[in-house]
Amino acid sequence: MGREGEPIPEVKAPEGPKGVINVPQRLLMGPGPANANPRVLAAQCLPLLGHMHPPFFKIMDEIQAGLRYLFQTESKYTCLMSGTGHAGMEACISNLLEPGETFVVGDKGIWGLRVADIGERFGAKVVHLKKDAGHTFSYDELKEAVEKHKPAALFLCQGDSSTGVHQNLSGLGELCHKNGTLLIIDTVCTLGGVPFFADAWGIDAMYSGSQKVIGAPPGASPLFFSQRAVDKLKSRKTKPISFCWDLNLVGDYWGWYNSRSYHHTGMVSTWYAMREALAVIGEDGLENLWEKHQRLHNELWAGLKEMGLEPFVEDPAERLVTVNCIKVPPGVDWKAVIDYAMDTYNLEIWGGLGQTVGKIWRVGIMGYNATPGNVELVLAAFREALKKQGKLPDRPFLT
Amino acid sequence: MGREGEPIPEVKAPEGPKGVINVPQRLLMGPGPANANPRVLAAQCLPLLGHMHPPFFKIMDEIQAGLRYLFQTESKYTCLMSGTGHAGMEACISNLLEPGETFVVGDKGIWGLRVADIGERFGAKVVHLKKDAGHTFSYDELKEAVEKHKPAALFLCQGDSSTGVHQNLSGLGELCHKNGTLLIIDTVCTLGGVPFFADAWGIDAMYSGSQKVIGAPPGASPLFFSQRAVDKLKSRKTKPISFCWDLNLVGDYWGWYNSRSYHHTGMVSTWYAMREALAVIGEDGLENLWEKHQRLHNELWAGLKEMGLEPFVEDPAERLVTVNCIKVPPGVDWKAVIDYAMDTYNLEIWGGLGQTVGKIWRVGIMGYNATPGNVELVLAAFREALKKQGKLPDRPFLT
Repeated sequence: MGREGEPIPEVKAPEGPKGVINVPQRLLMGPGPANANPRVLAAQCLPLLGHMHPPFFKIMDEIQAGLRYLFQTESKYTCLMSGTGHAGMEACISNLLEPGETFVVGDKGIWGLRVADIGERFGAKVVHLKKDAGHTFSYDELKEAVEKHKPAALFLCQGDSSTGVHQNLSGLGELCHKNGTLLIIDTVCTLGGVPFFADAWGIDAMYSGSQKVIGAPPGASPLFFSQRAVDKLKSRKTKPISFCWDLNLVGDYWGWYNSRSYHHTGMVSTWYAMREALAVIGEDGLENLWEKHQRLHNELWAGLKEMGLEPFVEDPAERLVTVNCIKVPPGVDWKAVIDYAMDTYNLEIWGGLGQTVGKIWRVGIMGYNATPGNVELVLAAFREALKKQGKLPDRPFLT
Repeated sequence: MGREGEPIPEVKAPEGPKGVINVPQRLLMGPGPANANPRVLAAQCLPLLGHMHPPFFKIMDEIQAGLRYLFQTESKYTCLMSGTGHAGMEACISNLLEPGETFVVGDKGIWGLRVADIGERFGAKVVHLKKDAGHTFSYDELKEAVEKHKPAALFLCQGDSSTGVHQNLSGLGELCHKNGTLLIIDTVCTLGGVPFFADAWGIDAMYSGSQKVIGAPPGASPLFFSQRAVDKLKSRKTKPISFCWDLNLVGDYWGWYNSRSYHHTGMVSTWYAMREALAVIGEDGLENLWEKHQRLHNELWAGLKEMGLEPFVEDPAERLVTVNCIKVPPGVDWKAVIDYAMDTYNLEIWGGLGQTVGKIWRVGIMGYNATPGNVELVLAAFREALKKQGKLPDRPFLT
């Protein structure tokens, strides 16, 4: 069977997986992934189509239309990057910045840090705009930075899942456009859970993730480019370094330029799931989703406050609705609370990330998991775990 | 619901997908994707796990063990890159070559061309080693190139799906090691269908795809690094440009360096599918898979030759087993044959790619689709389509 001269040694015995896969049922109420809608998961059982078949292009068209609704845009430049949110992140940076260009990065948690790292890897001149964990940038601070540096692009994370803050994006589109700056927004943990208007707010590029509010499995990064962003891409002096993320080519697979060329094999099952998740979002309606996430956020905090727990983000105007960061009170073993929730209820609650490790718990209320019952279970787990440590304030209705 | 000062315009109505997804049943006998095993697709319905949960790490461990069997290696450096074969391709290049280093690329079809492009994007000094479509490199040609250029790496595609050739890898490991060269192999359309021995053949890096012989959906790229490859990665003078493909970090998520750090969110459903596909491969056994692919390749060609059709690759020693390239005879409308197969049987047969467009048909016999029945259906489609064009040689048993 081998080719001439190729040694065919004895084949080593299989050491890999045996039998049929089985996984425990978990309730993922951390910062993500959230549980996916079973209807969305089920779409992945459908037989594969070829990545260049017309029925598959139809599904890609449906996804783009669904994304236009989700992003609130008329732009034809929407697609899924084949990867998680990091794929969208790296795609925005590697397509919209040329080596040596100035890139102002709003750094108020792990995502700003990561974007700054990637910007530097791809040769941009990165200006870190630093903010302490738990706070966001004011319009005036951003205005000063943009007017001073006249950067090629400004990056901000709408909702930082590591610190639980929500960045107000008001007026930034206009500010950036006046200064020849592209506005790049990360909506990985917010899209679908809080208002976002790509066109009305003058956003130039945005990427998100599939596995949070959208309720699909990880592996697809919804991406948006404005006409200004595409103009920048098309007028680059250098080729984008990454072939995988080159939106001259990826965009052409998605029909951005009025043709269809093969770039890579679309992620067929994952895109079926995304098509289905976007259908569910259309059925639910964005206003209803935003209202639901806000309401359950309020319910969570009403319950947490009864236990004496406080938000890490002090200013309610800066507090994120989808990922809730809870201060660990002095003397409480934060890890024991997480372990209690997992051991008792198969319930995932997370600790901090980056500079917030040990200081906070993180509770996500996102997408398919955003239900009153799940909020109640999270509250019950906190109540019982704190009580076990003797750390529940003595109030009659809690005993 | 909006943040202070953020304009909340009227929400545009959904224009996205309506109702439940439905896709036609297709038999994918082109160069890939092939149909996935339904047991593998079904694994994607299982509930999501968190990407840092111990039960998910167990699945990652199982995948790595299954990959070690599939690659025939003892190396601990195996993983899935989160993306299609292009992700593995870009990962090998961006991790193993530093800007300015020499990279000899065996270019005998579209994949060599693409690897050369990516090598140049990442700043390598690429030496194109060119071969006409339908032919492979001899050991002596490769020896001359490696000894002349002493490259940091040599790239070869084991099976080029655009031209249907199978590159003999015999002796190349030793040759490369003598010359301080890393040997990088593309096995996207061959792995599991033809013999491959990462350790015994002295391969340093290899990437493949999930959606061909492996029988899983597209979106996971099995990757292998030898100790020499990891040593090179660890002694780089520059950071790999891409964060997404940086195997210092991706490898640490997969436990290469005796720890586990978060790098990105693993593609949970897709990795479930890969775990299951690797279990199926272990049950089938590699020797049986290689034998089956060879046998069905022989059956296909016996049938094609009866119709007077000839292989594009003239030398049987260079002919690929998994993707079969068939010469379009003079006067035959190649497109009409493809359309006939699709219209009559929902059966996918492909034309050429790159320099072979219009000159060949491509028939894949891979993984879950490698069955005698499927081979017979392909033959029937050719027979009927050629007959319709009056191009079937007049032989009694075919009338």
